[in-house]
Amino acid sequence: MNAEIIAVGSELLLGQITNTNARFISNHLAELGINVFYHTVVGDNAGRLEEVITKAEERADLIIFTGGLGPTKDDLTKETIARHLGTTLEMDEEALQSIVAFFERAGRPMTDNNKKQALVLKDSKVLVNHHGMAPGMLYKTDNHVYMLLPGPPKEMEPMFQFEAKPMLARLLNQADVILSHVLRFYGIGEAELEFRLQELLDRQTNPTIAPLAADGEVTLRITAKTNTEEQAWELINASKKEILDEVGEYLYGYDDDSLASKTIELLKEQSKTISAAESLTAGLFQSELAAVPGASAVLSGGVIAYNEETKISQLGLSPDLLKQFGVVSEETAIAMAEAARLKFHTDIAIGLTGAAGPDAHGDQPAGTVWIGIATSDGTDAYRLQLSGMRNTNRLRAVKLALSYIIRTLTEGNARKI
Amino acid sequence: MNAEIIAVGSELLLGQITNTNARFISNHLAELGINVFYHTVVGDNAGRLEEVITKAEERADLIIFTGGLGPTKDDLTKETIARHLGTTLEMDEEALQSIVAFFERAGRPMTDNNKKQALVLKDSKVLVNHHGMAPGMLYKTDNHVYMLLPGPPKEMEPMFQFEAKPMLARLLNQADVILSHVLRFYGIGEAELEFRLQELLDRQTNPTIAPLAADGEVTLRITAKTNTEEQAWELINASKKEILDEVGEYLYGYDDDSLASKTIELLKEQSKTISAAESLTAGLFQSELAAVPGASAVLSGGVIAYNEETKISQLGLSPDLLKQFGVVSEETAIAMAEAARLKFHTDIAIGLTGAAGPDAHGDQPAGTVWIGIATSDGTDAYRLQLSGMRNTNRLRAVKLALSYIIRTLTEGNARKI
Repeated sequence: MNAEIIAVGSELLLGQITNTNARFISNHLAELGINVFYHTVVGDNAGRLEEVITKAEERADLIIFTGGLGPTKDDLTKETIARHLGTTLEMDEEALQSIVAFFERAGRPMTDNNKKQALVLKDSKVLVNHHGMAPGMLYKTDNHVYMLLPGPPKEMEPMFQFEAKPMLARLLNQADVILSHVLRFYGIGEAELEFRLQELLDRQTNPTIAPLAADGEVTLRITAKTNTEEQAWELINASKKEILDEVGEYLYGYDDDSLASKTIELLKEQSKTISAAESLTAGLFQSELAAVPGASAVLSGGVIAYNEETKISQLGLSPDLLKQFGVVSEETAIAMAEAARLKFHTDIAIGLTGAAGPDAHGDQPAGTVWIGIATSDGTDAYRLQLSGMRNTNRLRAVKLALSYIIRTLTEGNARKI
Repeated sequence: MNAEIIAVGSELLLGQITNTNARFISNHLAELGINVFYHTVVGDNAGRLEEVITKAEERADLIIFTGGLGPTKDDLTKETIARHLGTTLEMDEEALQSIVAFFERAGRPMTDNNKKQALVLKDSKVLVNHHGMAPGMLYKTDNHVYMLLPGPPKEMEPMFQFEAKPMLARLLNQADVILSHVLRFYGIGEAELEFRLQELLDRQTNPTIAPLAADGEVTLRITAKTNTEEQAWELINASKKEILDEVGEYLYGYDDDSLASKTIELLKEQSKTISAAESLTAGLFQSELAAVPGASAVLSGGVIAYNEETKISQLGLSPDLLKQFGVVSEETAIAMAEAARLKFHTDIAIGLTGAAGPDAHGDQPAGTVWIGIATSDGTDAYRLQLSGMRNTNRLRAVKLALSYIIRTLTEGNARKI
């Protein structure tokens, strides 16, 4: 089954909102093994919408619409589809009752245009909207399935996930099992990863292997399509072995892992605590760790020493050291990490100093970062030379710092990265 | 001029990433007065991409592509366009040099497939990529303008804004002047802002006034289209006055201001310094400030006291106070702010404590946040009750904390928010 997702709404074309619905729905369709070949966005215009529907019918079996089900005159998705398919709209009494109840609960008078929301395509299956007023619909013809969903993500997402998706799964009545497994890498670029796996990527058809780079990480998604879950895992594991034989040293995790969640997981496993002394990243390193639920078990805290005085007064760094080597130096990064480790009594501590940009810091060009990592075995320092804008550099420094911590926790130091 | 925006990338159709580029570009095209009638997303498939190009040529003058310019075999946007238009690709020496330099700076070996990124459409105008490797292109035929932009938003956004957009403005050869001015508000919801300005928004045609909500802020973009810059500013200023008469108390800045940049600006103007003691936000507040170039003039640093021990050992909070009132309390927020102010010798300091979620913190439900703000005039505390997921709550707490600091710096306290 092939699908096209059509978002209806001029606000999308004016750039006032982002089409997050297409991503959400696509992700779930991928799990069902439904191929999505196109996303389309069209405005609140009946003529253009009908053209888009006609085109979608040529190239998809399942057409999913989001938006245009509301009470205003601009909302014309179901009206246009009804006309296009030569059918009519009729009042859904249950939906109408729920709209009336909605206004009663809100203590607001219900204007007449709201009733329009309870109109549904004749003979469609109605999807109840538990988080808003406009119901969704599923309508079948001999050749196509049309699914109409509301535009607001907080209404659409639960409706899709809990009502529409199971309905689609039943429609598919699948014999096939489709399983995906994501491998997550660090310390290697997308191009190099692909270069090293070229032969495998070229040869592979089932499972498929798709590389993706984002925010300083690279992932490979392995997707197998077969008859049983067991067979799917066999296919996935065979490819995975080939991949890891080649680039396994760069792997840090799987599926929903992130560098931060992996760091927290390793620290928990090893019953270790962490602290940080941050300069250029100014708290971003610790904030990334704290984004993971349960981080408080291993993250004690840290110091943000953004200027030289604070490095001296709060971390006890020697003014002579700062003078001799500079704030952006190996020596300063090491001293910061060691100071944090002592001050917060943690097993491991990181020191981050650098010139985020746009300006250089003394003789250190913008993008120079020093990372110090202190453990009970001693302290190592690593130098990064980044080339992005100020805040890209700050974020990349944090991601790389996390990968160095992971390497330190797994191998004692991060020299191999 | 009518435009269509085509995003190329299977990762979009698999729901792995959201097409934020279409929103960004659409927003800027609206300012130029270019109508966008369609967004299309297509996968890394030459056949389907070419069909989409053919369709776009029927319905648009300007076709903007994002994605598919990278080094891998999946990246086939320019190759497909070249074949479709019957032209060829040639090596752009400048782009090649910059790719070589990129790898040299990063200290990584450059694999051969990276060179492919420097290939551009023959006779196209090259758009330099200052934040990545693949250059953009502008290519004109008799009937159409084709613009090719890289997919990563960090590369695409500055390239579009600073290179492509002025180029399009020149192409349009507009007699008209189009000017936009953005008003930035905090402490008021989008619905309420729109409700209070309803009459003005309904009546207004030139300038147009477009509300937009994102990340806990609301903005109004006023866009005037007229003959001279002077007239445009007259129109804008007249609307601005009407808006500010109604909701001026919620205004905090204009155009590229952010809550963080406004905070830094006010601190600089008042020659004041700031520090922070952060618990649930774990450095995110300070990191937001440090995202602004020049923050080091006013941001001394701070403490991240993520667990109870650290609040006692690093901030000197009394164990009795924590026991009596709890970690998430008015008293703790005040004590944290005051401790940071003393410890870092700053004029103003903030204390942030709360239950980010998903779990409650003792009897404090997830989403409860206390903000303490200490100044030489004393300390105030403010309670937030947020309703998002863990990291949305953390970010919203930081944005609201910044708005409370701004209000404190301008009015002595933030009671009015």
